[in-house]
Amino acid sequence: MTTNIPGYTYGSAEVAKSPLSMDDFANIKHAALFGDEDVRYLKMSRDILKDQVEQILDVWYGFVGSTPFLLHYFTNKSDNQPNTDYLGAVRKRFGQWILDTANANYDQDWLNYQYEIGLRHHSIKKNKTDNVDAVPIINLRYILALQVPITTTLRPFLEKDGHSSEDVDKMQDAWRKSVLMQVILWSQPYIHEGQF
Amino acid sequence: MTTNIPGYTYGSAEVAKSPLSMDDFANIKHAALFGDEDVRYLKMSRDILKDQVEQILDVWYGFVGSTPFLLHYFTNKSDNQPNTDYLGAVRKRFGQWILDTANANYDQDWLNYQYEIGLRHHSIKKNKTDNVDAVPIINLRYILALQVPITTTLRPFLEKDGHSSEDVDKMQDAWRKSVLMQVILWSQPYIHEGQF
Ligand code: HEM
Ligand code: HEM
Repeated sequence: MTTNIPGYTYGSAEVAKSPLSMDDFANIKHAALFGDEDVRYLKMSRDILKDQVEQILDVWYGFVGSTPFLLHYFTNKSDNQPNTDYLGAVRKRFGQWILDTANANYDQDWLNYQYEIGLRHHSIKKNKTDNVDAVPIINLRYILALQVPITTTLRPFLEKDGHSSEDVDKMQDAWRKSVLMQVILWSQPYIHEGQF
Repeated sequence: MTTNIPGYTYGSAEVAKSPLSMDDFANIKHAALFGDEDVRYLKMSRDILKDQVEQILDVWYGFVGSTPFLLHYFTNKSDNQPNTDYLGAVRKRFGQWILDTANANYDQDWLNYQYEIGLRHHSIKKNKTDNVDAVPIINLRYILALQVPITTTLRPFLEKDGHSSEDVDKMQDAWRKSVLMQVILWSQPYIHEGQF
């Protein structure tokens, strides 16, 4: 994974090891009915989505930008104004995340980077990557809720390549499960010791 | 809500007030794209599901019962054996929950009972309602993951009444959102102060 995206450290030595083991993750997959078919459909989605990343981000950023209690998390602590540098820097990594999710390569590097993304939404690491002085944490309730707009608004993009509606259904289902598993992993720093 | 289900206290004075306000909940609905149309489709599902509750529970209990790391949460602390009384008592309340979810009546009583259900999965109240000595807490990761089997296996039941596949899609989507919002609310006791 080599990119020139500032702050994107997937696969690098800077990323700490996930406190969760691959066996723990296997249980989460099992509980979420995530299987080989989902991997196949995620990979199918990659070819469709890879040329539409900017348009997808426009939709997602449009939703966050037009929802004050969400845009809040991109605002400066000092003046409550949205920090456009911060929005722009995160957007680049978010675009890469679309491709990474569609890659569906659930190895140790992937698991480690899920831990890192969780920390970056949490007060432990929020704002550090982009060296900004924004609000200190994103409340977990909204991270969990945002699964819906993200996986719902993806559908028209998945439909663009003329795949059957059955294939589109299965790609969307695989996306729902993958995003769910990721936000589960991201939630760990928020949760009391032993309760995750 | 009057039923004869032991331990089912929805709407009663025994249930504490939710720490979350109706306004907070409105934001969660907004972030999860939950709207009036979802309420309509949940209510539509009620007529279809109300005579299939036992069959639905058979499927859900079948999944939990055949998955050792999930069945674990219904086992006695002393002998690690599944507690059949506990399984049976929870099953009755779970059946009522199907109807309550389909009722889609998001008032203060509903919000309060979401808090209660969260506490009952958490160590704060687990085992107390049925006076059992089972393992003390259900790990949050599996509560979040179980959304998938619950809303996936519902589909054939939603299809039983001959509604159009568009209606079935919308009922299933509304169920996905409602279950997501509920597990979000249930997660609160697990989360560090101020981070929910
Ligand atoms: C399903 C839900 C969500 C997904 C898939 C998601 C995805 C992402 C991704 C991929 C990144 C960049 C990770 C990296 O640094 O490589 C990120 C960072 C960020 N996200 Fe989210 N996000 C979600 C929920 C939210 C919510 C609800 C907010 C609130 C507005 C939010 C605000 C942010 C912010 C402020 C950052 C930058 C954090 C930092 O300072 O490093 N995200 N998100
Ligand atoms: C989407 C996920 C889940 C849903 C919708 C759900 C639903 C419910 C409902 C409706 C109840 C009864 C609430 C009442 O007392 O009125 C309940 C209790 C219970 N559930 Fe869950 N549940 C979920 C996840 C899980 C998981 C992953 C487990 C682990 C096996 C689990 C185990 C239990 C247990 C042991 C109780 C009884 C708690 C007590 O002692 O009062 N649940 N659940």
